[in-house]
Amino acid sequence: MDDRRERLVALRRDLHSHPEPAWCEYWTTSRIVDELDRIGVENRLVGPELLAGEARMAVPAEATLAEWRERARGAGAREDVLDQCAGGCTGVLATVERGDGPTVALRVDIDALPITEAETADHAPADGGFRSGNEGYMHACGHDAHAAIGVGVLEAVVESDFSGTFKLLFQPAEEVIGGGRAVAESGVLDDVDQLLAVHVGLDHPTGEVVAGVGGFLAVRQFEATFRGKSAHAGGHPAAGRDAVQALAAAVQNLHAIRRHEDGATRVNAGVVSGGTATNIVPERATIEGEVRGETTALMEYMSERADSVVEHAAGMHGCEASVETLAQAPSAESDPELADVVYEVAGDTPGVDSRLRSAPLGGSEDATYLMDRVQKHGGRASYVGIGTDHPGGHHTPTFDVDERSLAIGVDVLSGAIDRLW
Amino acid sequence: MDDRRERLVALRRDLHSHPEPAWCEYWTTSRIVDELDRIGVENRLVGPELLAGEARMAVPAEATLAEWRERARGAGAREDVLDQCAGGCTGVLATVERGDGPTVALRVDIDALPITEAETADHAPADGGFRSGNEGYMHACGHDAHAAIGVGVLEAVVESDFSGTFKLLFQPAEEVIGGGRAVAESGVLDDVDQLLAVHVGLDHPTGEVVAGVGGFLAVRQFEATFRGKSAHAGGHPAAGRDAVQALAAAVQNLHAIRRHEDGATRVNAGVVSGGTATNIVPERATIEGEVRGETTALMEYMSERADSVVEHAAGMHGCEASVETLAQAPSAESDPELADVVYEVAGDTPGVDSRLRSAPLGGSEDATYLMDRVQKHGGRASYVGIGTDHPGGHHTPTFDVDERSLAIGVDVLSGAIDRLW
Amino acid sequence: MDDRRERLVALRRDLHSHPEPAWCEYWTTSRIVDELDRIGVENRLVGPELLAGEARMAVPAEATLAEWRERARGAGAREDVLDQCAGGCTGVLATVERGDGPTVALRVDIDALPITEAETADHAPADGGFRSGNEGYMHACGHDAHAAIGVGVLEAVVESDFSGTFKLLFQPAEEVIGGGRAVAESGVLDDVDQLLAVHVGLDHPTGEVVAGVGGFLAVRQFEATFRGKSAHAGGHPAAGRDAVQALAAAVQNLHAIRRHEDGATRVNAGVVSGGTATNIVPERATIEGEVRGETTALMEYMSERADSVVEHAAGMHGCEASVETLAQAPSAESDPELADVVYEVAGDTPGVDSRLRSAPLGGSEDATYLMDRVQKHGGRASYVGIGTDHPGGHHTPTFDVDERSLAIGVDVLSGAIDRLW
Amino acid sequence: MDDRRERLVALRRDLHSHPEPAWCEYWTTSRIVDELDRIGVENRLVGPELLAGEARMAVPAEATLAEWRERARGAGAREDVLDQCAGGCTGVLATVERGDGPTVALRVDIDALPITEAETADHAPADGGFRSGNEGYMHACGHDAHAAIGVGVLEAVVESDFSGTFKLLFQPAEEVIGGGRAVAESGVLDDVDQLLAVHVGLDHPTGEVVAGVGGFLAVRQFEATFRGKSAHAGGHPAAGRDAVQALAAAVQNLHAIRRHEDGATRVNAGVVSGGTATNIVPERATIEGEVRGETTALMEYMSERADSVVEHAAGMHGCEASVETLAQAPSAESDPELADVVYEVAGDTPGVDSRLRSAPLGGSEDATYLMDRVQKHGGRASYVGIGTDHPGGHHTPTFDVDERSLAIGVDVLSGAIDRLW
Repeated sequence: MDDRRERLVALRRDLHSHPEPAWCEYWTTSRIVDELDRIGVENRLVGPELLAGEARMAVPAEATLAEWRERARGAGAREDVLDQCAGGCTGVLATVERGDGPTVALRVDIDALPITEAETADHAPADGGFRSGNEGYMHACGHDAHAAIGVGVLEAVVESDFSGTFKLLFQPAEEVIGGGRAVAESGVLDDVDQLLAVHVGLDHPTGEVVAGVGGFLAVRQFEATFRGKSAHAGGHPAAGRDAVQALAAAVQNLHAIRRHEDGATRVNAGVVSGGTATNIVPERATIEGEVRGETTALMEYMSERADSVVEHAAGMHGCEASVETLAQAPSAESDPELADVVYEVAGDTPGVDSRLRSAPLGGSEDATYLMDRVQKHGGRASYVGIGTDHPGGHHTPTFDVDERSLAIGVDVLSGAIDRLW
Repeated sequence: MDDRRERLVALRRDLHSHPEPAWCEYWTTSRIVDELDRIGVENRLVGPELLAGEARMAVPAEATLAEWRERARGAGAREDVLDQCAGGCTGVLATVERGDGPTVALRVDIDALPITEAETADHAPADGGFRSGNEGYMHACGHDAHAAIGVGVLEAVVESDFSGTFKLLFQPAEEVIGGGRAVAESGVLDDVDQLLAVHVGLDHPTGEVVAGVGGFLAVRQFEATFRGKSAHAGGHPAAGRDAVQALAAAVQNLHAIRRHEDGATRVNAGVVSGGTATNIVPERATIEGEVRGETTALMEYMSERADSVVEHAAGMHGCEASVETLAQAPSAESDPELADVVYEVAGDTPGVDSRLRSAPLGGSEDATYLMDRVQKHGGRASYVGIGTDHPGGHHTPTFDVDERSLAIGVDVLSGAIDRLW
Repeated sequence: MDDRRERLVALRRDLHSHPEPAWCEYWTTSRIVDELDRIGVENRLVGPELLAGEARMAVPAEATLAEWRERARGAGAREDVLDQCAGGCTGVLATVERGDGPTVALRVDIDALPITEAETADHAPADGGFRSGNEGYMHACGHDAHAAIGVGVLEAVVESDFSGTFKLLFQPAEEVIGGGRAVAESGVLDDVDQLLAVHVGLDHPTGEVVAGVGGFLAVRQFEATFRGKSAHAGGHPAAGRDAVQALAAAVQNLHAIRRHEDGATRVNAGVVSGGTATNIVPERATIEGEVRGETTALMEYMSERADSVVEHAAGMHGCEASVETLAQAPSAESDPELADVVYEVAGDTPGVDSRLRSAPLGGSEDATYLMDRVQKHGGRASYVGIGTDHPGGHHTPTFDVDERSLAIGVDVLSGAIDRLW
Repeated sequence: MDDRRERLVALRRDLHSHPEPAWCEYWTTSRIVDELDRIGVENRLVGPELLAGEARMAVPAEATLAEWRERARGAGAREDVLDQCAGGCTGVLATVERGDGPTVALRVDIDALPITEAETADHAPADGGFRSGNEGYMHACGHDAHAAIGVGVLEAVVESDFSGTFKLLFQPAEEVIGGGRAVAESGVLDDVDQLLAVHVGLDHPTGEVVAGVGGFLAVRQFEATFRGKSAHAGGHPAAGRDAVQALAAAVQNLHAIRRHEDGATRVNAGVVSGGTATNIVPERATIEGEVRGETTALMEYMSERADSVVEHAAGMHGCEASVETLAQAPSAESDPELADVVYEVAGDTPGVDSRLRSAPLGGSEDATYLMDRVQKHGGRASYVGIGTDHPGGHHTPTFDVDERSLAIGVDVLSGAIDRLW
């Protein structure tokens, strides 16, 4: 047992020091395949095999993909895996088929964030020598822990007397809400009876388990582009069509979309830019923003109103506008009965001292595509929270996980799987 | 001569104490007709005879017209004139035809403003007993003086050896930019060779004469109406379509119409209103506003952009909008050669100690319709400024004219007319 | 029993035909006192006796109060009651003290709305001859039914073997959220152990009862006033300080106050007005608006941000601003245990075919002041919904109640009171 | 004479192929010093000697300066000049002192723009082999011609029988309005009796001369920075302070600063940016913008209002803001008497077929600092326009000059100087 925990920690640290952003998880995929080899799971789909390619969202430019591929090669990634991960497709689906029984699945995500990791001594990865080796990128949301937990659960299932089919999904590109839909639409999970997904932290301390996280906000991330006409701002101010004026009108009125009686909504104009010089009427401006809703319908309400605001903000200033969806995810709810199983198991798991039947996420997740797909095919799905003390918040340079939570995660999830067949 | 001056002052004071707003100048028209009788000018057109009815703008409701008509009757207006002033048409055109010669015209305006006159002792009309008898209305722009000067000039022309045709227009509804176009389009001034218009004050002191006022801003006054859908703001906030949000977006973006390189522009959202209760999403909102331009083209630039802003502000909030023109006037320039005549005459006029060839108005005037019409028919037009010390600014409760300027106005204008045949 | 129902219906119709707005319920108060006399309840407080005068909100001008007082006198209101209702204070608190036992209270509200009632034959009050006799005002929210139900409950309690103290509050000025706080702060309900409040309709059909309505949004209604400086919009555009530009910036940014993660919020700029003429830079503008929150803290978040928006919108355009609170109410929750009693009773009440333990109001109510006060003094409070088929929505000209619900209301409430001692 | 023209063209082409941006004119300065050597003018100030260092504006970062310095060295710039041009100071002032007489000065500017030059065959520099060698930078405003004309005039003055002092200023950093003030405040032109400045093109064709360009708009370029607080837009929307909302409110209200009755104003939010991710409440945002005025007072009106808008837009959204001036220039007028001299000379100059006494620039220029300085010290100044056919507009990739205008410029300016002593 201790060996296994040490291996889990070592794997998590190795992954932590090799963070790769969405769709660029070449080294990570290779490292996972190594673990599958070690455990002896031969049945696996890699990259394009588990993705409906056209359903991927927020895929970076070819040059970026190529750069990360080379970087992975330099860091020792396997050539066979690099070959398999073609065309901006990463991730692995491992399958254990063993006798009759239901199909149970676990989904973990594996990508990192474009955040520069803290270097101070009080940040354990810095102090412990496993800080990010890809400067400017960081596992600041715990996906390194997720992948390690996934490997741990797989090992536990293989060693148990499990009967049925177990599928373990190492999903790429969650941070950009880019991978969930592509996996869902590939159909590889259509036969799943019970789906578990897992996330560490979420402001829950080590020892606390949330059996069924809910309150996923449906989300749409978009880029609005305004196209006007430049002119010299001193000499010909009225000859221009000012894309920045359009942007400003849009931002103001996006936030002014009326609240909805049916539930929570969100709107954010997260990144704006426009114009080329102080003395030129700006010709082009963009808003990268997002809308969310407590339900998919509420997100769609916001989305339709946002499109209209952008269109009319442009028209008002003589500009053209277009809105492109960057990423999207529905809302979802954890299944209470499946959550009950997790809740029960957690009660028997060493290290767990607090159990919640449910708690809201308050954010978005593309696991909802998978949950939705499984639920629509008649299965159940629950999103499990494994508490971990984290010094900094998610998505901050000082985020870290309490490694004691790795074993708790493995135990709770493998314990639940054990009850599901 | 002294008699004549006294009569001029008395007439001006009588008019001052009977202010009537645009299109309601019933008593004023009657009083002017009395003067024409006294002077012996029989050839006159009244009300509908000098107006292209459908070209009138900003005509008040029938009930308002009727109320002022009754008030005029109560104040002693002649029944024959009240009969002539039918259907919201007021004003007089007096014509003196005498031998061969050019057609020369003078235009004065006769309406008052919805302003409550000052009552303090330092306000001469209050102290002198000729303060407004129509509470809430006031000759706060000197049109009482204009009408008196017109009568004085007519008397002078009649008594001179003038040969040709002299037309004296007492124009209604200048303050709402409502009458000029209707007179122009009636064609009654189409044969005019030389048109003079006159305004007292304009920040020029008594003794100063401006031979050719210019810089008239073309103007369009409009009412924009936003129609949305009401809903309970607490219970169904998203079910409404908020006309006040549309109004706010419109006001902000109307002012944000880009300046124009070709010259001065103006925009004002002068009167706004909308909504019915704090807890109801507003269903209806209106903006009464205006745009102006140093040239008619600049006004049209502003006008087109304003229409677009209103349309898109509405669309942005799911509302409908319409824009109605309330009043409009083109820009115009005084003819330099005609102004030269006035300039020369002013040099010989007692009481004149300062002459300007030109000066900008900085506002709008519907005399521009008449000037434009005459100029397009091959005639000349100039807008003459007769300085007068005025304690309060134009359109304020303490506005007053220095009555010494009445005679100066009569002398300069009749002197100029004398040189024009 | 049938007599009593007929009397109930007759009373409701009498009240329906005499609608009086907030703080003007002179005739209504008098009519209620008549009923108390009939039933024989002498212990009563009227008007100022039950109101902390300085805590009243949204009191109309003295002249309005006087006008409605005269109208009530003309409609036959009692002189003694008119005398008691001094200084803009209306309403009655009837008390039945009978032996030992708890203090139980029922609150009904009595004011009407400034809405013109429908005249069509399919509108029962019009067809039945009890349409509003105060044109422009209407019982469009069922407070006529509330008052009648109150009288019915009082009669039932008096005739029962109730032991303890029963207080029946006929509260004025609910529609403007103006009376609840004043009653609460007067302390007349501080000894109450169990408080019931009642509302008919709320989209629940006849036969449905909601044992504990919740989801009251805390609310603040305010008037923001912007004071700038007028100037001629053509001649001196930059000399003005434009209060309408400030208003527009405020409206846009009020709606753009960020959503809150802790729950629902609302904002509305319900009534706006500003300016005096199309060609004058507006000197003054006002917004009558409101903010709400699912909790009082959320309402206060919105309120603080709104104040800041108004202040800076003014500053941005060189104007001064002030914000005055017109009315305010906290959020509140019905007590589940008290609601359980109502729920149980409803199950035994003839005519009730649907029971809900709770349902959200989705609006605001100043009963929350009373509920909050009682709860803070250690008592319980529940807000009971009595379903009634209503053809038009609340606050619309065709609103009406199904008079069968009057008896249901009386039975459920008096039944619950019977269990509370 | 033909030799001289050929040399002029060659020099202009050499400069054209070595464009350097503001404050980076190392090679250009060196090249000019070479010409001074050739002509034999030893009396010269370089870089820091002619600049009040602290008055320079818009100086690039040290690294940028160093990079251009190295590039200049690589292109053959003289080490002695590179040494002299220390600390971000470039430019030359050449002085010819010869006998008694007035001090006459000519100012030309020498910097290029960050524009990528056209490569098509119809663009003469591309076709003729002297297209920009510094990719991304271009002499797109004719300063290459200005510097060449300056050298030509110097040569002409030296060869003439001029008596007095002649100062020739090769001014750096005009395009960023960054150098004029620093030269003015250094005092090196304080003794100048007659200052000429020159610009080619400005939409005037080859053969047209403007004796005294006017209508310089005073300008202030600024950077406004908004600092808020980031937060997760889904999970904690109200915890953030949104700098992009502040930016949007500022842009809308900057454009909504009221027009001014005293003359033309301008405002532009030329470059905006803010935020880091679609799902993060933006913490920081900036506007690089400008205001202008027909007079310095009008620019200051706009500038004060802009500062207030920025401050309150920030406050409205709970952010902090600061505004930094990037560059600034006053308005100025050419002296009519000095312009008359140029006008007369132009009449006698071969190749000149059209003369204008004056014409408006419609833009801004930091020559106004120099003109203002000379005028305040009792001298005269005129800004001379030398027409040149230019296929593309100023500041576009296809701008080019008609090289015939080089000789015209030299002849007109040296001719005028000849009359000024």
